[in-house]
Amino acid sequence: MHTSMTSRLAAEFLGTFVLVFGGAGSAIFAASVLAGDTINMGIGFVGVALAFGLTVLTMAYAVGHISGGHFNPAVTLGAVLAGRVEPGAVIPYWIAQLIGGIAAGGVLYLIASGKEGFSAVESGFATNGYGALSPDGYSLVAVLIAETVLTAIFLYVILGATDRRAPQGFAPIAIGLALTLIHLVSIPISNTSVNPARSLGVAVYAGSEPLMQVWAFFLAPLLGAAIAGVTYKFVFPDESDHVMEEIGR
Amino acid sequence: MHTSMTSRLAAEFLGTFVLVFGGAGSAIFAASVLAGDTINMGIGFVGVALAFGLTVLTMAYAVGHISGGHFNPAVTLGAVLAGRVEPGAVIPYWIAQLIGGIAAGGVLYLIASGKEGFSAVESGFATNGYGALSPDGYSLVAVLIAETVLTAIFLYVILGATDRRAPQGFAPIAIGLALTLIHLVSIPISNTSVNPARSLGVAVYAGSEPLMQVWAFFLAPLLGAAIAGVTYKFVFPDESDHVMEEIGR
Amino acid sequence: MHTSMTSRLAAEFLGTFVLVFGGAGSAIFAASVLAGDTINMGIGFVGVALAFGLTVLTMAYAVGHISGGHFNPAVTLGAVLAGRVEPGAVIPYWIAQLIGGIAAGGVLYLIASGKEGFSAVESGFATNGYGALSPDGYSLVAVLIAETVLTAIFLYVILGATDRRAPQGFAPIAIGLALTLIHLVSIPISNTSVNPARSLGVAVYAGSEPLMQVWAFFLAPLLGAAIAGVTYKFVFPDESDHVMEEIGR
Amino acid sequence: MHTSMTSRLAAEFLGTFVLVFGGAGSAIFAASVLAGDTINMGIGFVGVALAFGLTVLTMAYAVGHISGGHFNPAVTLGAVLAGRVEPGAVIPYWIAQLIGGIAAGGVLYLIASGKEGFSAVESGFATNGYGALSPDGYSLVAVLIAETVLTAIFLYVILGATDRRAPQGFAPIAIGLALTLIHLVSIPISNTSVNPARSLGVAVYAGSEPLMQVWAFFLAPLLGAAIAGVTYKFVFPDESDHVMEEIGR
Repeated sequence: MHTSMTSRLAAEFLGTFVLVFGGAGSAIFAASVLAGDTINMGIGFVGVALAFGLTVLTMAYAVGHISGGHFNPAVTLGAVLAGRVEPGAVIPYWIAQLIGGIAAGGVLYLIASGKEGFSAVESGFATNGYGALSPDGYSLVAVLIAETVLTAIFLYVILGATDRRAPQGFAPIAIGLALTLIHLVSIPISNTSVNPARSLGVAVYAGSEPLMQVWAFFLAPLLGAAIAGVTYKFVFPDESDHVMEEIGR
Repeated sequence: MHTSMTSRLAAEFLGTFVLVFGGAGSAIFAASVLAGDTINMGIGFVGVALAFGLTVLTMAYAVGHISGGHFNPAVTLGAVLAGRVEPGAVIPYWIAQLIGGIAAGGVLYLIASGKEGFSAVESGFATNGYGALSPDGYSLVAVLIAETVLTAIFLYVILGATDRRAPQGFAPIAIGLALTLIHLVSIPISNTSVNPARSLGVAVYAGSEPLMQVWAFFLAPLLGAAIAGVTYKFVFPDESDHVMEEIGR
Repeated sequence: MHTSMTSRLAAEFLGTFVLVFGGAGSAIFAASVLAGDTINMGIGFVGVALAFGLTVLTMAYAVGHISGGHFNPAVTLGAVLAGRVEPGAVIPYWIAQLIGGIAAGGVLYLIASGKEGFSAVESGFATNGYGALSPDGYSLVAVLIAETVLTAIFLYVILGATDRRAPQGFAPIAIGLALTLIHLVSIPISNTSVNPARSLGVAVYAGSEPLMQVWAFFLAPLLGAAIAGVTYKFVFPDESDHVMEEIGR
Repeated sequence: MHTSMTSRLAAEFLGTFVLVFGGAGSAIFAASVLAGDTINMGIGFVGVALAFGLTVLTMAYAVGHISGGHFNPAVTLGAVLAGRVEPGAVIPYWIAQLIGGIAAGGVLYLIASGKEGFSAVESGFATNGYGALSPDGYSLVAVLIAETVLTAIFLYVILGATDRRAPQGFAPIAIGLALTLIHLVSIPISNTSVNPARSLGVAVYAGSEPLMQVWAFFLAPLLGAAIAGVTYKFVFPDESDHVMEEIGR
């Protein structure tokens, strides 16, 4: 790829910004908007699941040809372990992604403050959590299993859909909607991370409790992505090499 | 492009008509349809978000190859600033879009009047607003930030997905679903504009209050689009020029 | 097209069967499934809108290359008037579509009878209607305007997305999701027809009242389709002819 | 196809694992998540329908080029009868699919156990059923008709969308969203199977009652798929042969 590292990092910053702004933003502003006591006009978990997926679908079409469209430290790790991206990209990509997520969290905080009575700590601010902070009361072990398995599935979809044997041009649809699928399953379990940048991006604004649990949303996604990244080429070997092929293509 | 300006303006009129008729129409007719006191059979904010996105997805496939498929004065501004459309198209495109939006609002008014007790002023008629007119009570500042940031994201998706380096033919999917994403985030904030023609198209029928706020939904979308249009080519430079490339392709 | 008329009619029968079975079936079985008194686990109007659109999206990919994928007498009329299909196909296509719709209604009736207490007349059986039979109480005039305008929009999307200047292969996505959009707007108005075969297919099982209103759902869709079919080639002229180009391609 | 049988079986195992983990998982964890007594923040039947479809859409892009992307014993049967897959693949594919489904059910059980008070038997664990076990009380006959007709439709979409005359690359979208459509219609009837591996994968964990009904969800889907597989090539004959063409392409 003859794209400069500056452009690639800008693409990863922008894509991760949109992922957190759009995904967590939909949860913060729109998941629950009551009309009277009994009717939720808001988008519920199904709308939040759709929003997260569409951030990746749209931004992968927008800048996937620039950076590969990871927007997620776990994806970058898996792509490197599968031989799709050069190892030297890991650290700069991770930094761009984490900064993008935190910047998005900041703008969300700013907008949310424009509604009377807003408190990031009390509302949860779309953070991930286990135990008492799990939306539907799932244990740490359940959360770790779910996040690891779902991130591994996510990476299998990413590596498979961008394989040169797969139909060309459709990968952003497959990958974005895989993220929607993952949220449809696991919002009640952990509020769904599979992405450390998404977890950290909102946790830094929501007080100490979510921040103390954020380690789990680095550990499990990175583990799941590593498992898929290492195993993919042995399970589905290709007769020719295709190093450096990019996710967004 | 060897398409006549007459056809291009007809396409922009038609596309913007469908955007307002389908998007605002879904909000007016279908967002809230109660069964008893407690169940909403209607489509809620998630259905309205889907409807707005599908107007652009479908009409961009239908007439995007004619006019570029803007259907939005802010998009036309951003496309011109990014060097994708000739500057002389701005004023005629804007006129076609505003007339299309107002015409759609008129047909919506006509149909809505076929239900007993309808009042455009009391129902809100799917207008955009801040403060007392914000669906969930967000301040003017919050609305301006949200509309500016979301329109900038929208233009980045549009300019990126129609970049000649992106997969060909998929841009209407990316752009339409980006508009769905934007609505999933911001209906509670401002009822979501990111499009002055959509805002004006319904505001002219809903009394003086929404009309007096419509300036904000010209200012913020145009500002956001301008920021993205000016910065895109510096952040993601292409080694060759591609002036006049069209959005709908 | 070198496909036999027998295969083409089989495709239109099958596609219209699926449209009514899937679309009206989702409304009959799944729109409202209460859990307790206050929660609808069912799919609501948004799910029904999605189901109708997906019948066309999926069947247009499945058999669109055989018959053009109309599944709707109004679409066939519009396609003929726009010069896309030979006039001699109109009557056989209409017959195949109407039989397909009525056959689907029959299987739906059979399955619905497997639940205790089912009555097609009392439940409405997903029929279209105006006035007292409009889901949200819209007048005949409102219904006629909405059905005419929405069918015209539908045909513009169909003719535009299958135009040889549009991206190839994407038309079923645009057309199917246009039908979803149309339902998102107008289920509360008329229960959404834009398709005489869909209206007749269920009306014959639901007693005399819906059947006496079915004329409106022949008149308005055919009128809307005719307007779009006649005007399309004048508004968006192509420099070369493209007779016989098919909708599903 | 020059892919090894080992890779093909791994792909079928993985795809069926994701189908059951994502589809049934969304039903188990997320369909109903109450906020107070009256509001369901969960994804309802519409979210579950979306989740099932997205498992197939995403995994068909990921590994469809490896195995054909069946993930379903009924689909394998239909594909063989239509001459698309060699008969020798049936038994190994079925074994891989059934093991994949049961493995996914096991991981779901493990995660679900991380929430206090979970009981697979009492919750139903997303099993299929008729009569007393039908979600909305449909009889065995109604369930058998619905499952047979819907699986036949599913196979027509699969065989049609992967026909070499159809647009290339879009089949996973058509097939995945056909599964969503099928769920939108029939979750209230049978909880929707059309896939013996999906039915067995959860039934083995939910006590004796669902397991005693699982025969119906082998019989009807296999029957429906066989009808479509046998009839397809007679109804829509192609002038040239296309044996061994794969579903995921």
